[in-house]
Amino acid sequence: MGNKKTIIVFSGDLDKAMAAFIIATGAAAMGDDVTMFFTFWGLNILRKAKKVQVRKDFLERMFGFMMPRGPEKLGLSKMNFGGLGAKMMRYIMKRKNVNTLTELMENAQALGVKIIACTMSMDVMGIKKEELIDGIDYAGVATYLGEADEANVNLFI
Amino acid sequence: MGNKKTIIVFSGDLDKAMAAFIIATGAAAMGDDVTMFFTFWGLNILRKAKKVQVRKDFLERMFGFMMPRGPEKLGLSKMNFGGLGAKMMRYIMKRKNVNTLTELMENAQALGVKIIACTMSMDVMGIKKEELIDGIDYAGVATYLGEADEANVNLFI
Amino acid sequence: MGNKKTIIVFSGDLDKAMAAFIIATGAAAMGDDVTMFFTFWGLNILRKAKKVQVRKDFLERMFGFMMPRGPEKLGLSKMNFGGLGAKMMRYIMKRKNVNTLTELMENAQALGVKIIACTMSMDVMGIKKEELIDGIDYAGVATYLGEADEANVNLFI
Repeated sequence: MGNKKTIIVFSGDLDKAMAAFIIATGAAAMGDDVTMFFTFWGLNILRKAKKVQVRKDFLERMFGFMMPRGPEKLGLSKMNFGGLGAKMMRYIMKRKNVNTLTELMENAQALGVKIIACTMSMDVMGIKKEELIDGIDYAGVATYLGEADEANVNLFI
Repeated sequence: MGNKKTIIVFSGDLDKAMAAFIIATGAAAMGDDVTMFFTFWGLNILRKAKKVQVRKDFLERMFGFMMPRGPEKLGLSKMNFGGLGAKMMRYIMKRKNVNTLTELMENAQALGVKIIACTMSMDVMGIKKEELIDGIDYAGVATYLGEADEANVNLFI
Repeated sequence: MGNKKTIIVFSGDLDKAMAAFIIATGAAAMGDDVTMFFTFWGLNILRKAKKVQVRKDFLERMFGFMMPRGPEKLGLSKMNFGGLGAKMMRYIMKRKNVNTLTELMENAQALGVKIIACTMSMDVMGIKKEELIDGIDYAGVATYLGEADEANVNLFI
């Protein structure tokens, strides 16, 4: 029987998202029960690559337009150079046979990592359920706290 | 009886500060004992909005001038666009009836969240006690570690 | 007998690195068993100041050239202004008799803090063992998770 881990994914940067999923899949592969709670910019990681038709007001539409849609569009937290850094990082990782973020996310779901989108952040940023990947849960801070209370490792990324 | 939580608030960004206080007030509302330890840029969150007359040397004065004074002046960690992003975020949150950071901070104090300003960071950044909000404690890393040892969730934001 | 602490050092910023080492040395001085796991940009903190002759391909060489070499070259996460902010911070800390990052790192090693460089990140960023400081360990996420399971405080910085 493994332990429980939680990770709050606040950041929507490619490098931090990779770190989060490497830890999550590593722990899940070792038998741990892992919960990832996506909030603020972290929600962008869960967005579908294709535009989804949903009702949004003007500001929500603008926000949605400016924020990256899914793992293939994220930038680096440092040395991004308008996306060039992220491209270079993706190229290097492919050459070195490191799992892409998309693969890590699929692995995480296959390994039973629980992915939760923060409903309050979704409301603020105007992100709708239809825009996020399938097989995830929706909840708020109380759910996160309940999970964290049962875990022995809790990270904020 | 609740558990204990600690949060180191290193960041002085509006979005990260909100995340920190949403977690802190959420936990405190559920009966937890919460300690927030503000260090480096995080100290800016605790600054009073009005300039306070205190003795400072030239560099301290310059630092104080360049750093935001309190929750209403903080920027976003991403897409800030010289403050425009933060303004938009504040506008959206008001419209969606989400608590402002100022309200979250008041709630935190009302709920008994212990707010500690890191004295070493205050010294380095030239921030004086008179410049910070009332009702907070002052301590160093040893105090933080003592609190963290008693907690079951410890985050660095 | 102390407790165990782990810190993932993902960031390569001077201010965050200082926070990490202040916590680590503080805990170690109080008798705790501390493990720091350096990954992604955090590896830059462990680089030797002098260029080391190693075999690298073109991209690895470029990455190595663009990233800071060791604690004296790191920038601030905020208000860096092309290195000026970091210089000012270093100057202030010297004047206030705060330990430099280099001193904190030496203290950490003297106090028995275990420093681990993430081998997967080293591979991706093309950083070789010869380029990193002496007296450190090399391992992957499984080792981190094993250490974190035994610790009562786990931070991601």
